Amino acid sequence: MATGIPLQIGMIGLGRMGADPARRLMRDGHRCVVNDLDRDAVRALEQEGATPALSLQECVDKLEPPRNVWLMLPAGAVQPMLDQLVTLLDADDTVIDGGNSYYRDDIVPARQLARHGIHFVDCGTSGGVWGLERGYCLMIGGDDKAVQRLDPVFRTIAPGTGTAEPTPSRTRTEDAGLRARTVDAETAPLRDPDAYQYEIDVAEVAEVWRRGSVVSSWLVDLVADAFARSPALDDFAGRVSDSGEGRWTVHAAIDESVPAPVISAALGQRYESRDLGTFTAKALSAMRSEFGGHAEKKE
Amino acid sequence: MATGIPLQIGMIGLGRMGADPARRLMRDGHRCVVNDLDRDAVRALEQEGATPALSLQECVDKLEPPRNVWLMLPAGAVQPMLDQLVTLLDADDTVIDGGNSYYRDDIVPARQLARHGIHFVDCGTSGGVWGLERGYCLMIGGDDKAVQRLDPVFRTIAPGTGTAEPTPSRTRTEDAGLRARTVDAETAPLRDPDAYQYEIDVAEVAEVWRRGSVVSSWLVDLVADAFARSPALDDFAGRVSDSGEGRWTVHAAIDESVPAPVISAALGQRYESRDLGTFTAKALSAMRSEFGGHAEKKE
Amino acid sequence: MATGIPLQIGMIGLGRMGADPARRLMRDGHRCVVNDLDRDAVRALEQEGATPALSLQECVDKLEPPRNVWLMLPAGAVQPMLDQLVTLLDADDTVIDGGNSYYRDDIVPARQLARHGIHFVDCGTSGGVWGLERGYCLMIGGDDKAVQRLDPVFRTIAPGTGTAEPTPSRTRTEDAGLRARTVDAETAPLRDPDAYQYEIDVAEVAEVWRRGSVVSSWLVDLVADAFARSPALDDFAGRVSDSGEGRWTVHAAIDESVPAPVISAALGQRYESRDLGTFTAKALSAMRSEFGGHAEKKE
Amino acid sequence: MATGIPLQIGMIGLGRMGADPARRLMRDGHRCVVNDLDRDAVRALEQEGATPALSLQECVDKLEPPRNVWLMLPAGAVQPMLDQLVTLLDADDTVIDGGNSYYRDDIVPARQLARHGIHFVDCGTSGGVWGLERGYCLMIGGDDKAVQRLDPVFRTIAPGTGTAEPTPSRTRTEDAGLRARTVDAETAPLRDPDAYQYEIDVAEVAEVWRRGSVVSSWLVDLVADAFARSPALDDFAGRVSDSGEGRWTVHAAIDESVPAPVISAALGQRYESRDLGTFTAKALSAMRSEFGGHAEKKE
Repeated sequence: MATGIPLQIGMIGLGRMGADPARRLMRDGHRCVVNDLDRDAVRALEQEGATPALSLQECVDKLEPPRNVWLMLPAGAVQPMLDQLVTLLDADDTVIDGGNSYYRDDIVPARQLARHGIHFVDCGTSGGVWGLERGYCLMIGGDDKAVQRLDPVFRTIAPGTGTAEPTPSRTRTEDAGLRARTVDAETAPLRDPDAYQYEIDVAEVAEVWRRGSVVSSWLVDLVADAFARSPALDDFAGRVSDSGEGRWTVHAAIDESVPAPVISAALGQRYESRDLGTFTAKALSAMRSEFGGHAEKKE
Repeated sequence: MATGIPLQIGMIGLGRMGADPARRLMRDGHRCVVNDLDRDAVRALEQEGATPALSLQECVDKLEPPRNVWLMLPAGAVQPMLDQLVTLLDADDTVIDGGNSYYRDDIVPARQLARHGIHFVDCGTSGGVWGLERGYCLMIGGDDKAVQRLDPVFRTIAPGTGTAEPTPSRTRTEDAGLRARTVDAETAPLRDPDAYQYEIDVAEVAEVWRRGSVVSSWLVDLVADAFARSPALDDFAGRVSDSGEGRWTVHAAIDESVPAPVISAALGQRYESRDLGTFTAKALSAMRSEFGGHAEKKE
Repeated sequence: MATGIPLQIGMIGLGRMGADPARRLMRDGHRCVVNDLDRDAVRALEQEGATPALSLQECVDKLEPPRNVWLMLPAGAVQPMLDQLVTLLDADDTVIDGGNSYYRDDIVPARQLARHGIHFVDCGTSGGVWGLERGYCLMIGGDDKAVQRLDPVFRTIAPGTGTAEPTPSRTRTEDAGLRARTVDAETAPLRDPDAYQYEIDVAEVAEVWRRGSVVSSWLVDLVADAFARSPALDDFAGRVSDSGEGRWTVHAAIDESVPAPVISAALGQRYESRDLGTFTAKALSAMRSEFGGHAEKKE
Repeated sequence: MATGIPLQIGMIGLGRMGADPARRLMRDGHRCVVNDLDRDAVRALEQEGATPALSLQECVDKLEPPRNVWLMLPAGAVQPMLDQLVTLLDADDTVIDGGNSYYRDDIVPARQLARHGIHFVDCGTSGGVWGLERGYCLMIGGDDKAVQRLDPVFRTIAPGTGTAEPTPSRTRTEDAGLRARTVDAETAPLRDPDAYQYEIDVAEVAEVWRRGSVVSSWLVDLVADAFARSPALDDFAGRVSDSGEGRWTVHAAIDESVPAPVISAALGQRYESRDLGTFTAKALSAMRSEFGGHAEKKE
């Protein structure tokens, strides 16, 4: 019995990251058409109830429109696959990129598919080899229509609501795992503005990370709660105290000749947050003024 | 009397970084046609012997072919200027970008100009407000023909050979400041390979930095000597000792709550160079293996 | 009903970190004699069932020998308190320092008390304001006799065994939270060897941190499992791969001018773990050889 | 002919760092009594004009009171040597520690010798194997009487005044290399206050480093000038701009998988200096408030 309406999904790429989500979908009542270059991988999933597709054409043919094609491929294989799919799919079909690809590399394909009326959803998937049981943490971006249509699929793949207690100060009711960022077709022509066009809702991100992600932890729970109470953290000035443990750890690491650059950097940031690095910064500004006539910006 | 054959240069951009190189060129017998949006800046240089040009067209008209046009503009103004120049210049003319622009942003213009037969030279210029007297450190990239033709100009702008004693172990005789990297027209279509197509000759770079750059120092002199003796530093395994001062400095910084992230990082690297961070790295590999089934690469 | 035999504890210091452990002890059937400079704090705990003591002498008098005195004081107040207690306590009594003090500062007091036959237990206590309900993560060091005698107290204050599932690969049966490091009376006369005399059992530390500590997380669970399987992590060489997310994050932080020194350092360590920093290290060794005649150590 | 009045110096330790200063002293007319466990080292200096001493007693006997004994020993050998010397020297004699020892480790010996009326001078010596010709950078600490008496020796060992041009904005006339910090006999009983009792005159330190130190460079010259103009750098707010090179370097290092933690940290500090890390710091403060009830300090 599916969490919502059962859907049909084409799953392309049945490696470590693709086979288990397919299994999780089928367990929850969805139907999967599966494809991989490795025929044994296809047969294994067939044994578990999936519809096999030995070619891309066959996979597309076996899906009922509007089709949902989920890619779980190495980053380098995504663009060649899209170049093929764009010739096989129809308008209103959807491609989901669930692999570990650079989000910037999804902006161009989104436009390429949009020109053919095909939806594109970028769905970062975290959860590792434990996701089959624990569920996966999904970071979903795409246009609203496609994301809403896929809602039952995302609900199945994401962890159950019981996996983490609700954040105490949280009042929103939508499931953060299903929130979509709209890919805006209207973007500045420059590469950089393009890559930074999104307003990240950090409170929602923290909430998503609580469930199924590899970084889920009690501290993330607490940060999610703080964000839920005040997204801009207005109660704080950002002057972080340090109560000794960090200092002692770095002292010990130095004495024992153990590199501890991450903790050292974290400790330095606490000092910096309390404006204890200002004299050093003044010396740098002075140096820049001397060699280059660089005036210090006043704001 | 010029260091070599006197040349004629069009200098566009007469701000802090453009006016002084023009002066240095004129002092050494070269002729400058100068242009800037600020007419007062043009008039000031005219007083000192430059030929004024109040428009880009006028600047190009006053230069004898093959023309040399040197840009000293803010990074954001370079591409719009090139778009204009490409319509005004002729084949075999040369554009030199002497401003502080990202080298990647010079790769595309180089091709744009090449399609019109116009040479492009990327000439990183360091030396700050002291360059008029000290000379400038030049990092020159471009096709051989253009670079060789401009040799007398580069010799004038760079510091005199007397400004730093020869590196003891150095046997090459060419002046490092004038070495050119060839911009290869034959490049892979991808952005990354494109950006990393060059083989950097670090010994030559160290030698260039000794003369006129803001980082010139005794330690750079010593490193240049080491590279001159063995460019691959074959005598060393890269196990860097530390004799105490770094540790004591970081201990003191911690105790006095002064952020010292750069020295801390440098100290950590020394430990790391002696393989003292291996256990930490094993723990990371183990963690990745646990959550993602990531096998550790063996090489 | 106490987790084990009910004991009597003198709790000195009833601030944020002292009152709640006293409450947790009383809830589990232990008896507390409580003391604080703030009489209201003493009265509040008296209302909840504690025996009040308005002076140190009264506190000691109301405890039955052998006494257990638990200090929950600011780091700076510990040594003056010990100087008083050493005149009031008898041989075989025990002092527990549960506050947030530098472990090095516990080595000298341990010897001071030992000269009077008084046991000293250093008990790092993590858990913050949530410890009353969640239980506290305890890192316990001291001589075996005292630690074993206090076992029922530690069991009460630590989280219940149900708070984290057992580490899958763990075969030891003792509760890691109760493991004691013996303070060795036989130490080198130098300050440094003294501070680094202990062999840390990292597998046990990871296990302790899983329960009640503020850093408890799924990743700590996984690391604890890896250590339980192989304490020296023999299956790994320490060559940590990176699959892109770290790089992309640092690229984005740079582009948006956000300081991200901790993630940057972590990324650099992955490169370093794969020996990608060797050339840099060679350059440092070469420089040191040039200026100081420092020969590079071969191992 | 000595730079000032010729003095007699006992030089103990004739290794890489001791033999050359002795030579430099003798070249300038001072007389040296030399001692080392290695008799060949003693004989070699004898050939060059030094008075040999094959035992510590002989060394002390051959020096005319008030004696000056300069130690150039490994850090670990200093304290045992002082324990012997304190039994052989007389009141008003002076011991100079010129080796590479932790300054904290000189505070206790200074008091030990002071109890016998013996002066102690801590003289950090930088210059490496090039010091014989270049002169050494000396960082001198000790009581005024001893430092003034040794003035001619320090003038000989330090670089000549012609080695670096005067700092333009500098108006003080004393030679920075000879400035002494007084060791204050009146110190707090705690280790930390003791170690941090000195007010460092950073302008003088920068000036000293310009001459003979391994870090001498044009940038140090510029910083010395800025400090000479305003020791507190009052003209600057400490908001350091970045003009692109640092960002581009870190981007390239990431893309090529080269660890560049020092430049990365330096870049992050520039962002931090412009308060671009405040949101991160707020998140940390929020997290600390959640788990520990830690209120953020307001100043």
